[in-house]
Amino acid sequence: MDIEQFRKEGYKAIDAICEYYAGLEQRPVVAQVEPGYLSKLVPNEVPEKGEPFPSIAADFQRLILPGITSWQHPSFFAYFPSNATFEGMLADLYASSVTNPGFNWACSPACTELESVVMDWAAKMLGLDEAFLVQSGVGGGVIQTSASDSALVAIVAARSAFLHAHPNVSPSDLLIYGTSQTHSLGAKAALILGLNFKALEVYPTYQYGLRGSTLQKAILEDRQKGKHPFVLIATLGTTSTGAIDCMPEIGPIAKEAGLWMHVDAAWAGITLSCPEYREKAYLKDINLHADSFCTNFHKWGLTNFDLSALWVRSRTKLTDALDVTPAFLRTKQSDAGMVIDYRNWQLSLGRKFRSIKLWFVLRSYGVEGLRAHIRKSVALATHFADFVQESSIFELCTPQSFALAVFRLAPKDVETPLTQDQLNGLNRTLFHKIAARSDITITQTDVLGMFCLRLAVGAQRTEERHIRRAWEIISTAGVEVWADYQAGKPVPVENGTH
Amino acid sequence: MDIEQFRKEGYKAIDAICEYYAGLEQRPVVAQVEPGYLSKLVPNEVPEKGEPFPSIAADFQRLILPGITSWQHPSFFAYFPSNATFEGMLADLYASSVTNPGFNWACSPACTELESVVMDWAAKMLGLDEAFLVQSGVGGGVIQTSASDSALVAIVAARSAFLHAHPNVSPSDLLIYGTSQTHSLGAKAALILGLNFKALEVYPTYQYGLRGSTLQKAILEDRQKGKHPFVLIATLGTTSTGAIDCMPEIGPIAKEAGLWMHVDAAWAGITLSCPEYREKAYLKDINLHADSFCTNFHKWGLTNFDLSALWVRSRTKLTDALDVTPAFLRTKQSDAGMVIDYRNWQLSLGRKFRSIKLWFVLRSYGVEGLRAHIRKSVALATHFADFVQESSIFELCTPQSFALAVFRLAPKDVETPLTQDQLNGLNRTLFHKIAARSDITITQTDVLGMFCLRLAVGAQRTEERHIRRAWEIISTAGVEVWADYQAGKPVPVENGTH
Repeated sequence: MDIEQFRKEGYKAIDAICEYYAGLEQRPVVAQVEPGYLSKLVPNEVPEKGEPFPSIAADFQRLILPGITSWQHPSFFAYFPSNATFEGMLADLYASSVTNPGFNWACSPACTELESVVMDWAAKMLGLDEAFLVQSGVGGGVIQTSASDSALVAIVAARSAFLHAHPNVSPSDLLIYGTSQTHSLGAKAALILGLNFKALEVYPTYQYGLRGSTLQKAILEDRQKGKHPFVLIATLGTTSTGAIDCMPEIGPIAKEAGLWMHVDAAWAGITLSCPEYREKAYLKDINLHADSFCTNFHKWGLTNFDLSALWVRSRTKLTDALDVTPAFLRTKQSDAGMVIDYRNWQLSLGRKFRSIKLWFVLRSYGVEGLRAHIRKSVALATHFADFVQESSIFELCTPQSFALAVFRLAPKDVETPLTQDQLNGLNRTLFHKIAARSDITITQTDVLGMFCLRLAVGAQRTEERHIRRAWEIISTAGVEVWADYQAGKPVPVENGTH
Repeated sequence: MDIEQFRKEGYKAIDAICEYYAGLEQRPVVAQVEPGYLSKLVPNEVPEKGEPFPSIAADFQRLILPGITSWQHPSFFAYFPSNATFEGMLADLYASSVTNPGFNWACSPACTELESVVMDWAAKMLGLDEAFLVQSGVGGGVIQTSASDSALVAIVAARSAFLHAHPNVSPSDLLIYGTSQTHSLGAKAALILGLNFKALEVYPTYQYGLRGSTLQKAILEDRQKGKHPFVLIATLGTTSTGAIDCMPEIGPIAKEAGLWMHVDAAWAGITLSCPEYREKAYLKDINLHADSFCTNFHKWGLTNFDLSALWVRSRTKLTDALDVTPAFLRTKQSDAGMVIDYRNWQLSLGRKFRSIKLWFVLRSYGVEGLRAHIRKSVALATHFADFVQESSIFELCTPQSFALAVFRLAPKDVETPLTQDQLNGLNRTLFHKIAARSDITITQTDVLGMFCLRLAVGAQRTEERHIRRAWEIISTAGVEVWADYQAGKPVPVENGTH
């Protein structure tokens, strides 16, 4: 493809994306394809001769789009949001046009320098302590692929620092602490690193957030057993229910015990951009006690996947754990300590030019625009939670957390209260009923044995009418399921999932 | 930005990229900026109010492009190539437009299904054994971020399988094998995983490739010491000199000793698309003995960063090591074993829709187009190597490997032969002279104490005239450096790097 062909095909791609978004609301939310659909529609091998680009682009519309679940659809309420904005798309396009592997400053100085600038911008916008700024010269921010990567990097740095201070400790005695509500990234990091992960207990009485007393007790007991907890993954906004670990209690205990506290705020960290959420999100305690902090701008932060922001209080703890610079990667600028080589702040060598999308998004929306997006999502979730609370057959399973409502069918005023098993059966049936639809999507979760439904707001195009419609669909289905139950129709008992 | 603004700004972005490529050859290859240039030119904080997009896009031209080293410039000969194509850019744009975190099949079925299709396409194109195909149901291919990630994933799987078979072995006794020429990803994986990396010796007599005898001896000696080598990172095309480990010798020994053989062919793996290189690249032995194989299409494979292709012979060894599926990520399709959930084939949970760029590239170029690109690069490198060999003051340090020439200033027919230190001094001076230019870029390397220069061909726009010009620049500089030396001008002795 030469330059003029690219211009033509580029315009057509832009037009196709405009068309997709113009018709987004009329599309199914969930891709309506069966496993294996694609392999039946495409050849079995790479073509010998190149094909004309227009037919390839047409196949994107014909073969790929039907298999895409529209995360930007205003009725997408599953998992957590994964925002995409036009500003982010254009940034991705510019980044792709000057592709380079970005492993050191010299690869393309703009990549490193812009990353430092925008990570400082974002840190200030979230109210993070200045120790976390690149400008501090001590800590700093780095863009990772995902919150899993961010946590893994933090744990590797924590382990390295701990073993450096305690050279006689055997790695097999090390413990990664999280809770039963910690994202699977905790257990996965342990699996990858060959370490043990311990899920501390949390309770409904504190809305599934970790308490200081639980942490303190675990440290004492584990140390008595000869174990060495060295890192705590604390969560601001768990995936299951949006729970917040009690930072004011656990922060000082972790610090006192020499544990690295990594705050996984993948989803909810972005709320810190709004001053009114900072107290609830324990910003002050995070600033006092966290050794590292992660939030994903590619979730609720208007930035196209992938952009996981990780800040650390000590950059040398990262580079001590990750720097293996060989001769062919040495540069005069790094040797002189004049520049950051971000490869030593992450697992991989190569890295994409991702700061540009955060730069484009933050400048396009401004602090005001981002706050407006967050506040609107929370208000819409509140609207939904109000519907739930006003209903006689539904209940919230936990208090609404930011833009997440966790709820279930739990009819009140029944003669014989239903058992947990019966309620779980009812809600599985309800979930399957909704999961069978193509015009809305939500997800399920298991909260210590309680089967619940989750509705997470955050797509940019979601308005009040979509929330009203969601409630109409869910409440109508709930009424039907409850009526069937009362009429004696059997409730499926299999542990169905979607 | 609404849809019509996006259309307008999208067209402008396409135009801007056209302009960049139209003027590419007239640009400096290497960014002409000093460390810290950007922070002086941008505000210190996120703006409160959003800015109009045209001024943001203009800042990409004004602030970012000057800090970009043009890896697509026809006179870029540093490191290895990092190809970007218009087809890849459009694919990135389409992928960004339907952004989704891609962690399981249900996220967007097209992402998973296309990845399986194109990884099978690529495997067949490279001639990999059918055991590596997704279609085999046993092995399969997965797209990773970088060769570091690919190696790390392979090592984690290897460790898991090894410890499962040998439950009494202590991780501290495990050894990762590579050579002194293995990419830093080997040592870095060891650092991340808290394991030991052992660099086996290689010798100039076999062009810095690992021999079976060395491997056999190491296994015996290490086992006698109670150590357990469990994985061997074998390289097809090392970064330093393009060395190829002797797969026919080491493959059977690794297998016999129960070592997982991971073949890191990040750069040179793509040459397997050309039948004439398969013997030199030991395809037959890779197919017989490799447990995993990685090549980066984002290097020499016309695909925009990032696209590291990893194939494994046993997918269950990956998922045994990496699957920690929690309730909220369970889906009926995965539970039924009907689909691949690629999150269990990688370190992170979230993942980008990257298969589309490989699909666009492979279809646009076809096997013929990709082969033509590889063959042209090799022919151009041969052209350069011929210049070196015909010169009376330069020599090749190792035989040309595919499109990489490693050479140095080493005047022949001198009365007193120069010592290695003297030669290194001369070549450092030469390297600094070339590194000070903006119209060409090459890199240096250290080959067991010998300071060498590397010229790697592979940018799509490099033609014979750029090679002739490169030789003119380098040979002229070499003549000057040698004349200065002969005239008694001092040669700097510092270990300069660029």
